[in-house]
Amino acid sequence: MFFEGEEESGSPSLVPFMTENAEELTADIALICDTGLFGNDTPGIVTRLRGLLGEELTVTGPSKDLHSGMYGGVSMNPARVLAKIIAALHDDTGRITIPNFYDGVRELSPEIAAQWDGLKFDSDGFLAQVGLSEPAGEKGRTALEMIWSRPTCEVNGIWGGYTGAGFKTVLPSQASAKISFRLVGQQDPNAIRESFRSMVQSLLPPDCSVEFREHGTSAGSEMATDDPAFEAAREALSDEWPQAAAFVGCGGSIPIAGHFKTILGMDAMLIGFARDNDAIHSPNEKYDQRSFHKGIRSWARILHLQCFQGRKLEQTLKILLF
Amino acid sequence: MFFEGEEESGSPSLVPFMTENAEELTADIALICDTGLFGNDTPGIVTRLRGLLGEELTVTGPSKDLHSGMYGGVSMNPARVLAKIIAALHDDTGRITIPNFYDGVRELSPEIAAQWDGLKFDSDGFLAQVGLSEPAGEKGRTALEMIWSRPTCEVNGIWGGYTGAGFKTVLPSQASAKISFRLVGQQDPNAIRESFRSMVQSLLPPDCSVEFREHGTSAGSEMATDDPAFEAAREALSDEWPQAAAFVGCGGSIPIAGHFKTILGMDAMLIGFARDNDAIHSPNEKYDQRSFHKGIRSWARILHLQCFQGRKLEQTLKILLF
Repeated sequence: MFFEGEEESGSPSLVPFMTENAEELTADIALICDTGLFGNDTPGIVTRLRGLLGEELTVTGPSKDLHSGMYGGVSMNPARVLAKIIAALHDDTGRITIPNFYDGVRELSPEIAAQWDGLKFDSDGFLAQVGLSEPAGEKGRTALEMIWSRPTCEVNGIWGGYTGAGFKTVLPSQASAKISFRLVGQQDPNAIRESFRSMVQSLLPPDCSVEFREHGTSAGSEMATDDPAFEAAREALSDEWPQAAAFVGCGGSIPIAGHFKTILGMDAMLIGFARDNDAIHSPNEKYDQRSFHKGIRSWARILHLQCFQGRKLEQTLKILLF
Repeated sequence: MFFEGEEESGSPSLVPFMTENAEELTADIALICDTGLFGNDTPGIVTRLRGLLGEELTVTGPSKDLHSGMYGGVSMNPARVLAKIIAALHDDTGRITIPNFYDGVRELSPEIAAQWDGLKFDSDGFLAQVGLSEPAGEKGRTALEMIWSRPTCEVNGIWGGYTGAGFKTVLPSQASAKISFRLVGQQDPNAIRESFRSMVQSLLPPDCSVEFREHGTSAGSEMATDDPAFEAAREALSDEWPQAAAFVGCGGSIPIAGHFKTILGMDAMLIGFARDNDAIHSPNEKYDQRSFHKGIRSWARILHLQCFQGRKLEQTLKILLF
């Protein structure tokens, strides 16, 4: 059993630990419990994860905050410069404009497209539960396609100047943003970082400079669903849940799945029991009690089938459960 | 003597007080000490002030903060929407794009343009002291022209999402900005507010809403420099300062000058002794001791000349010194 408590802060100890203990950790397959149900009665077995690239940038204009009466209109305003940079990162069709950003992004195969169509995903309900009525991303793509198979560029935080109550007529010296990219397929996080940084530099007007800070990277991953473990898991879950498990994508990033592959040479299977309305990473996050109890029983069933079905004890799979 | 301590917070008590005490307050002219020197040895007599319009806007997209893995790429991101709105407020030549924004803005008369040219304003030095090398506003206009005679639209503050140390892959539900406009000539602050708000509404994508908060307004003002008070003041200042006083503009906004005119029917003459490097409204603001002492003596000289020169005592001007 492998417990990791650093994931939300970039897992600084994880890679060194895995590298040092590779022999002991290596198994036939890694089972990861960090994802969600497809529907309240339908478990999901994740077959693809998006990667993540986090960048923080600070644009600096004048050497100090200025009075907007004295310098307004004549000094470069870094908050306006930053807004212009962010606005330039997408075109009017929702596509990301960073050069070579889509290198390594493949269109869905007809098989997977048909499979996902068959899931009858309730796009309207998914959006409605957070107050939205239509998918806002790339034109001509479904919500499910956007979340599971398309890369993103999002602003996670932005700040500059006076942000308290009332008003100050200050021209800020600096403005900053935290921007993250979800990556898919064979997109190379390092190449995208370089291309992003070059594009930002090229958009800077005179008298402005920019500093970047890196906040972790992971590539996207796709699992080989023809591994017998996937069918065995689906069978095991059918004893616990009313609906057959669905092979699904996951819009989030679980860097450890990539590390299992690259450091330990091990595929991962992700099965989890979170519900759409758990509000993960939001205020008032919760975990459903039914998911908790059925999840415990589900894992017992999966381990039982993975380990023993059709095998003698000495052939038991070695499993790393994360 | 009239002391006002509320100016930086919108002067909520000022207008009611002036209206209630109009008879007692009314004088031949208001003398205001709230501006700066033109150069370290050259006093400035202000002949025009920019007005001010402050607006705060909050763009709301999804009903709560979201996980960027779960909703990234598919949910409207209010920080991106806000950036796009801000980026749209200026065109590539630095002109403000709000419809009818420039109504009431006049080009400089050849006389004033020549007068300002004669001031030999050190544009490079003015910019260099805050780390800038060129004026960033409307193309084809000098820095002095921009500050004294052109309106602005500036971001004074922007914020949304996660802005602390490290990284959170949150999609913010809201993003906000404080935006102010410096106004000149006959620009109507109320008409500009309406036009700004309509433009912002028109730029909102589906599933986004916006709320506005008003942060005070004042129109720009221009003084009639043919009033004999202006020449008398210039003469009085020549006894105190090595260089003759310059008739100058002021990029800042001193709403009380407008109130003196509209409520008390009284022109204002603004003479002050701040220095360019006082860092007003910035951290470590200071006031120069030489300015303080020479300023005290300057006002004594101005009052002396204004009150007594060529007049008998019973003809003394009534003066409201602010």
